[in-house]
Amino acid sequence: MVRQRVDAMRDAMRRRGIHAFILPSSDPHCGEYVPAHWQSREWISGFNGSAGTAVVTLEDAALWTDSRYFLAAADQLASTPFSLMREARPETPTIAQWLSQTLEAGSVVAADGWVWDYGTLLDIKEELEAAGLVLRTDIDLVEELWTDRPSLPLNAVEVQPLEFAGESASDKLGRIRESMAEAGADHLLLCALDDVAWTCNIRSTDVHCTPMAVAYLLVGCTDAVLYIDHRKLTEAVADHLMSEGIRTAPYEDIRNVSGAGERFLLSNATCNYALVDSLVAAGVTIIDDNPVSLMKAVKNETEIEGFRRAMRRDGVAMVRFCRWLSERMEAGELDTITELTVDERLTAERAAQEHFRGLSFDTIAAYGPHGAIVHYEATPETASRLEPHGLLLLDSGAQYRDGTTDITRTIPLGPLTPQECHDYTLVLKGHIALATQRFPEGVAGTRIDAFARYALWQEGMDYGHGTGHGVGSYLSVHEGPQGVRHTWKPAGLVPGMTMTNEPGIYREGCHGVRIENTMLVVADGETDFGRFCHLEALTLCPIDRAPILLSLLTTAEIAYIDAYHARVWTELSPLLDGKDKAWLRQATLPLTP
Amino acid sequence: MVRQRVDAMRDAMRRRGIHAFILPSSDPHCGEYVPAHWQSREWISGFNGSAGTAVVTLEDAALWTDSRYFLAAADQLASTPFSLMREARPETPTIAQWLSQTLEAGSVVAADGWVWDYGTLLDIKEELEAAGLVLRTDIDLVEELWTDRPSLPLNAVEVQPLEFAGESASDKLGRIRESMAEAGADHLLLCALDDVAWTCNIRSTDVHCTPMAVAYLLVGCTDAVLYIDHRKLTEAVADHLMSEGIRTAPYEDIRNVSGAGERFLLSNATCNYALVDSLVAAGVTIIDDNPVSLMKAVKNETEIEGFRRAMRRDGVAMVRFCRWLSERMEAGELDTITELTVDERLTAERAAQEHFRGLSFDTIAAYGPHGAIVHYEATPETASRLEPHGLLLLDSGAQYRDGTTDITRTIPLGPLTPQECHDYTLVLKGHIALATQRFPEGVAGTRIDAFARYALWQEGMDYGHGTGHGVGSYLSVHEGPQGVRHTWKPAGLVPGMTMTNEPGIYREGCHGVRIENTMLVVADGETDFGRFCHLEALTLCPIDRAPILLSLLTTAEIAYIDAYHARVWTELSPLLDGKDKAWLRQATLPLTP
Repeated sequence: MVRQRVDAMRDAMRRRGIHAFILPSSDPHCGEYVPAHWQSREWISGFNGSAGTAVVTLEDAALWTDSRYFLAAADQLASTPFSLMREARPETPTIAQWLSQTLEAGSVVAADGWVWDYGTLLDIKEELEAAGLVLRTDIDLVEELWTDRPSLPLNAVEVQPLEFAGESASDKLGRIRESMAEAGADHLLLCALDDVAWTCNIRSTDVHCTPMAVAYLLVGCTDAVLYIDHRKLTEAVADHLMSEGIRTAPYEDIRNVSGAGERFLLSNATCNYALVDSLVAAGVTIIDDNPVSLMKAVKNETEIEGFRRAMRRDGVAMVRFCRWLSERMEAGELDTITELTVDERLTAERAAQEHFRGLSFDTIAAYGPHGAIVHYEATPETASRLEPHGLLLLDSGAQYRDGTTDITRTIPLGPLTPQECHDYTLVLKGHIALATQRFPEGVAGTRIDAFARYALWQEGMDYGHGTGHGVGSYLSVHEGPQGVRHTWKPAGLVPGMTMTNEPGIYREGCHGVRIENTMLVVADGETDFGRFCHLEALTLCPIDRAPILLSLLTTAEIAYIDAYHARVWTELSPLLDGKDKAWLRQATLPLTP
Repeated sequence: MVRQRVDAMRDAMRRRGIHAFILPSSDPHCGEYVPAHWQSREWISGFNGSAGTAVVTLEDAALWTDSRYFLAAADQLASTPFSLMREARPETPTIAQWLSQTLEAGSVVAADGWVWDYGTLLDIKEELEAAGLVLRTDIDLVEELWTDRPSLPLNAVEVQPLEFAGESASDKLGRIRESMAEAGADHLLLCALDDVAWTCNIRSTDVHCTPMAVAYLLVGCTDAVLYIDHRKLTEAVADHLMSEGIRTAPYEDIRNVSGAGERFLLSNATCNYALVDSLVAAGVTIIDDNPVSLMKAVKNETEIEGFRRAMRRDGVAMVRFCRWLSERMEAGELDTITELTVDERLTAERAAQEHFRGLSFDTIAAYGPHGAIVHYEATPETASRLEPHGLLLLDSGAQYRDGTTDITRTIPLGPLTPQECHDYTLVLKGHIALATQRFPEGVAGTRIDAFARYALWQEGMDYGHGTGHGVGSYLSVHEGPQGVRHTWKPAGLVPGMTMTNEPGIYREGCHGVRIENTMLVVADGETDFGRFCHLEALTLCPIDRAPILLSLLTTAEIAYIDAYHARVWTELSPLLDGKDKAWLRQATLPLTP
């Protein structure tokens, strides 16, 4: 199948005089999850990981992906024309390097500029041109070759009402126009679907785990146009938009946007290449900035209250799941449970909660050695059956209409090794260290990331992922612009931002530990030296006490855990009864009597 | 005088059809200290601070500088045509904004491309062009107008011998050529004088506090050319250069460098605009990178041993000074001492040490409220007389042939306020926190900066400067590419790097506290998670114990201070006798009996 598609693509390439075609894992809206309509890289190569770039030349084919997918990709590409290119290995060429070795100088490389973000394809273009190759970005071979292509998503749009959004779309547009005026811009172009959804106070189900509608928004100084398929809009939604000062236009009409001599505010990282390139060609001045990103990140009081309600419901679901799991443990019935059963049961508990709209990402239920695979997702083929020992790493979350949740707990299923307890305790120390910081308002997240690693570093350990990411309000579970990371995130932390706190340890072939709460940045006073902040846990769920080595904790660390558990008890116990409440009572007892 | 110069410049501008001329605080080598020959901004404006940009139009004149100099600049510009532009204030326009408001569209702005770094002037050029103005970079009005201009420095060059450099220039060139090959570059162009000095193993006295010669170095795949005034070279130095494979050419001949179709490795931040622009115009491909920056930052064993020797001598000088100061205190004679006397006495102690070649920067001797002015430099007009109370902040360092030193001690001159003791202790906690970290090899310095601020942050305090900068080996006291800073410094910390550890607190009108040691990054083992490092103090000098509030220190912090003092005693006491040794004994006693 893949071979036939590649052959057909090569025929089309010959007809067009193209020597290579590049297919990315992205789409016109440059988000984390790509609707099926745009999953052309999987279609051409058969590789279904979330990240990968396929390149087809007349003679060769290769697919670049990262270390998460080396095994899966090798397997899925085995009987295809594609060679696997393992990214970030010293011997692996970049796409441009490989093409310059594979093709003759002057050869024509093509890509569909609509499915790449501007910054990335511009970099590739420059690299290819430096190597003497030509890049054409106006060619879409996929549309003509992919005959059974899924259609564009046509799910209905719903309004995110003021009781959850906390600010009307027209007020948001007012703030956006102030930013535009400051930047001297005539327009703001939004391609990222969460930016569009936030600004318009609309939601939909076009994208996996993220309640957004496929659309563009163009904000002018006096008008705002939502480019969207009209079939997605009920009369009520259309009325909402009109009353907020947002007019609609057909989705495809975004191609007609122009504005010679005008200044457009847009993000090179979330707007697609074709659109930005056509604006530049039309004489538009681009200002690479997107004020909505920061506005969306700072939650208003209504959104924060929504988070608190959603967290209580999510905590109830987690507690009910944990109680059920602990009963299976006590009954010696863990062997009736697999990683997939864990996901099903936990999802069912969440689905029973008010305002539940789906998961916020695919559950990671990873038992034993699977816990060391950071992005593990169980399948019927790989799913482990639980055993009465070791650690279950459970990273999960849900979309509620009033908030998005993201929580990781690492749950002991029986006796643990000393190393498992030691690792668990060090990760907990890291989690507490970040949770108890006071820091200047506006600090870049990168500057406080190491607090979560301090205890690990002293013992020669570390983890390869960031410590925290922003969390949307019934939107994307991974939200910018802030982040507590090892890489540079200049966006400053300010009160109202939500973010995760999730240090971990991963020992290949043994186990993984991660402890994650979603946190809120809150103001913590003003001194002669400026304003300060700290983090407050939004997530409400016990952190398992059994693996903790008390001898490694300071008095202050023990006090933090006890206070957190006391709060979890206070907030969740009124919502529980019977066995669930009894389980919570035990799970939230102080660490020391 | 200033008015006449400005008038003459305006005449010259009219003759040339220029509407504005910009004069920066930089020179063709883009370093920290500018030789007198290039101090044209001071010449035109009369303002003598280290940072400032002057702009002269036919009708107006303005000078931009930063907050360190707001008072001094206002004073010095009072009777000149220049308005003061206070940088980083919201109401202050950028130079391009101001020019676009002041001039008509299409007006010609000029600057001498030779005295600007490429990156900065390119940014200004783009900003001016976006505002509809023209920037010419090929006009030097200064040379024709500044009739009594100081000549280019003509100081003799000396060889930095292998016993101090630890690696021959030809070996360094070999490593540089490996980097060039990796980058696919035909040439490396070095404009920064410390890069040139390090690569060629030469030193001179052309620049304030920094032992460098004015020169360029162009490294090719088989040859290397040092562009330098031949009058600076003795036969012995010329022989050294020749034997290391470095040929010389007249300094001005750098203007003839070309290379159509070739690839030049160079740093946009340290190469001047005119040179890079002429290369680009000649068809050269620029790769913005400079491998020498990192090579120079990682000291070899010989350089590290040199640092250790230099630090012992510097420690002896500091101890002798401190002993003398404490005697004046005990004798009630502090009123015979001013901030300038402090500088003189300390400099004399250093000058008496072997291999002393000068100060590594202008001494900051700041008593009481002056300590809160981060870049304070005493003058006969401002110098305070010492009094028998409060804190003296003393930040100083020297150039020895085998190493460069940088140390800050905050010295109590008598009774202290509780706040002085509290601040001192918190700064000390910050210093110790960074000094005792273990961290992954290659960590960006920005990631560990907050450890030095943790204790301050918890009490709502902070400081506005970086925590640490690289230190050269008988070169610049401020060296890149690494840095432990609040702003982003991506360069990773690796064993052999030298850097300072200098947290502080500054209370305007009251006092300043800073405690600084120069540190060495040393390897600290390899685990399953990678290689780790920690810092080791190179500086050897007691940290005054009197202001320390023991109740605020942990057992581990007390142990660190005691161990450091024990080491200072062990290393310095054999080099001291009499009253100096007795003072050191007292100053290095354990904090708790």
